[in-house]
Amino acid sequence: MIILGLDPSLSCTGWGVIRAEGARISHIANGQVPTDARAPMAVRLATLHAALSEVIAAYHPDRAAAEEVFLNKNPQSTLKLAQARGAVLATCGMAGVAVNEHAARLVKKAVVGTGGAEKQQVQAMLKVLLPGATIAGADAADALAVAIADAHLGKV
Amino acid sequence: MIILGLDPSLSCTGWGVIRAEGARISHIANGQVPTDARAPMAVRLATLHAALSEVIAAYHPDRAAAEEVFLNKNPQSTLKLAQARGAVLATCGMAGVAVNEHAARLVKKAVVGTGGAEKQQVQAMLKVLLPGATIAGADAADALAVAIADAHLGKV
Repeated sequence: MIILGLDPSLSCTGWGVIRAEGARISHIANGQVPTDARAPMAVRLATLHAALSEVIAAYHPDRAAAEEVFLNKNPQSTLKLAQARGAVLATCGMAGVAVNEHAARLVKKAVVGTGGAEKQQVQAMLKVLLPGATIAGADAADALAVAIADAHLGKV
Repeated sequence: MIILGLDPSLSCTGWGVIRAEGARISHIANGQVPTDARAPMAVRLATLHAALSEVIAAYHPDRAAAEEVFLNKNPQSTLKLAQARGAVLATCGMAGVAVNEHAARLVKKAVVGTGGAEKQQVQAMLKVLLPGATIAGADAADALAVAIADAHLGKV
């Protein structure tokens, strides 16, 4: 089972691909897709789509996973995030890849053992769970975390 | 100049294509893309993408236009709307079609002459401005209105 974890965001979307075989998980690849803040919205969204289409074509995930949306207090921030998420989820849908959604605290609980874990604890645990993986950045780390959580929690 | 007006929404996205030659506008086509409320989000977004890709391929718009987002008081509604909008704008971006955004009151002003116009006034004016056009529904009407407004206001 190949799982694609996603951390959608307009400025930089993280992705991470793992293999899950029963309780065993291993790292396959991860990366981040930055977009040009000066570019028009439609172009930025198309950049996300194009990059994630390539990821899906390269790694053929059996399913994908993302955290449930965090509703920012700033509606403009929610709007940007949700538009990026829409482009990313549409890309999965177009490729026939189902997307599981998991609450952020369940992702932390699955990776670290507690729903209140700090980002640093999650990242430290990734090094243990995916030994040898070079992680592209914080967004890729979040994406790998949701992929690992999905291996435990998931069912499309 | 061919303009594609868009009224993105998760449950039903409206679209309308017009030709604008100087001050003259004429109707080309319009329609609505409903999605299955029981389907997963990624599938619904992919449905919007697929249908609008076909519209773009069929009518080769020079540019597109949508209203600026209305931030609903209900954050979950904003989230659904913005995800749909993200999929729709990404579709335009992928096709190389730039998207103008116009404030709702400027759209009403351009079509009816007053920014506070009711929906019914907008729809009545569409019959005058686009004689003979059969309009698929309220979402398609909104999409045609933003296309007409863009013919007056637009510049990518």
